[in-house]
Amino acid sequence: MISKSQISFIKSLHQKKIRKEQGLFIVEGLKSIQEFINSDYVVDSVYYTENLMPKLGNLSRNIKLHEISDAELSKITSLNSPQAIIALVRIPKQSNLNTKILNGSFLIALDGIQDPGNLGTIIRSADWFGINTIICSLDTAEAYNPKVVQASMGSLSRVNIIYTDLGKFLSLSSLPVYGAQLKGKSIYETDFGQEGIILLGNEGNGISNELQSRISYPITIPRYGNAESLNVAISASIFCSEIRRKS
Amino acid sequence: MISKSQISFIKSLHQKKIRKEQGLFIVEGLKSIQEFINSDYVVDSVYYTENLMPKLGNLSRNIKLHEISDAELSKITSLNSPQAIIALVRIPKQSNLNTKILNGSFLIALDGIQDPGNLGTIIRSADWFGINTIICSLDTAEAYNPKVVQASMGSLSRVNIIYTDLGKFLSLSSLPVYGAQLKGKSIYETDFGQEGIILLGNEGNGISNELQSRISYPITIPRYGNAESLNVAISASIFCSEIRRKS
Repeated sequence: MISKSQISFIKSLHQKKIRKEQGLFIVEGLKSIQEFINSDYVVDSVYYTENLMPKLGNLSRNIKLHEISDAELSKITSLNSPQAIIALVRIPKQSNLNTKILNGSFLIALDGIQDPGNLGTIIRSADWFGINTIICSLDTAEAYNPKVVQASMGSLSRVNIIYTDLGKFLSLSSLPVYGAQLKGKSIYETDFGQEGIILLGNEGNGISNELQSRISYPITIPRYGNAESLNVAISASIFCSEIRRKS
Repeated sequence: MISKSQISFIKSLHQKKIRKEQGLFIVEGLKSIQEFINSDYVVDSVYYTENLMPKLGNLSRNIKLHEISDAELSKITSLNSPQAIIALVRIPKQSNLNTKILNGSFLIALDGIQDPGNLGTIIRSADWFGINTIICSLDTAEAYNPKVVQASMGSLSRVNIIYTDLGKFLSLSSLPVYGAQLKGKSIYETDFGQEGIILLGNEGNGISNELQSRISYPITIPRYGNAESLNVAISASIFCSEIRRKS
């Protein structure tokens, strides 16, 4: 049982502005919530329906627990098929961006990715391929949007997402920048070495003009058919796959 | 200007049942509609707002044209940001499935893919990598769902989608079946030869027990990090990429 004001508070966290003000975001589903509990994130509170009680296991005493009804769940969920458990998790302070720390590894840089599903899927693929840092331009979709959290399938708890002025970041970094472009060297023939930045652009417009000059190597995924382009999450994942295949 | 009954007719095509009854589906956006016009599909009618008129070009006289207002557009669209033009396109008769015709090429088989965005993205990637046929189990999402059409970005006009009893199809086909599994031979070390079926399973449950025995080679995309799985459209696309890289 939760109060009306709690319900409207949780619902308000569907909005970016309120998430920012309150420093909280919503995670849904037992598996994802467990991954956040086992991560550096701080889980503030958990709302669960009766059936889920036995599966919850031992939770830290610092997490506030609330049993709710199915009717209450349907009011606070952002999913079409809610998963019987919702957590409020603290938005972490963004870690300071030390460009030197990132040397010797691969990272992904996103220039204006708009679709939350794409961002979440990129986070999930990065986690699969062991890429732990994603640098986002300030106009990229917000990582704590419920649709991003959902599509990341728990991987958001493990991948470091940093929002920054991407042009400035790329100008300070000494890593080679591999730009995903429609024209460039074939990804299959590219030697990525042991470190670098995979730069991907906006769904409709690609990498912005401002960042084009920061690209060290324009790289393309060769086309064998007729589609005009690939989905950006697909491109990002094929880059990750090729880098790991060669490493 | 369109009538109230036309508006409710078009809106009714957001439902699978009505699409099936009427044999029509909705395509939105100028680029996608032009690709359907240039394909074997039959475009029945086009609804466009004034601004789009000059871009329409020469259309076949058989296509019924309707200029509509922005207010009317907002009533019939299935998109959050409608694109000023909507077409009704005929659902084609499903081509007969001749397993022998498919020999000598690669095709994708989908076992119970539920998410329309995933199906649309798979169609787009198949088109990019020159894979022209996708065989879907009967419980896979319907290809004429507006979300599938949208995610396919026009590629639905070029890729042949066939719904059938997948177990029966695989038992009749003589092509090797490469099953995307969490355990199996590394995709990077697999020689795919010149023909085969890439079999992908449901988002939550993978390939069904019934079809497991039809897999010739269980193949995995090696994991380098901690995510539990990859999105199915990502897996499908990495399979396509690896097949083309080696061909």
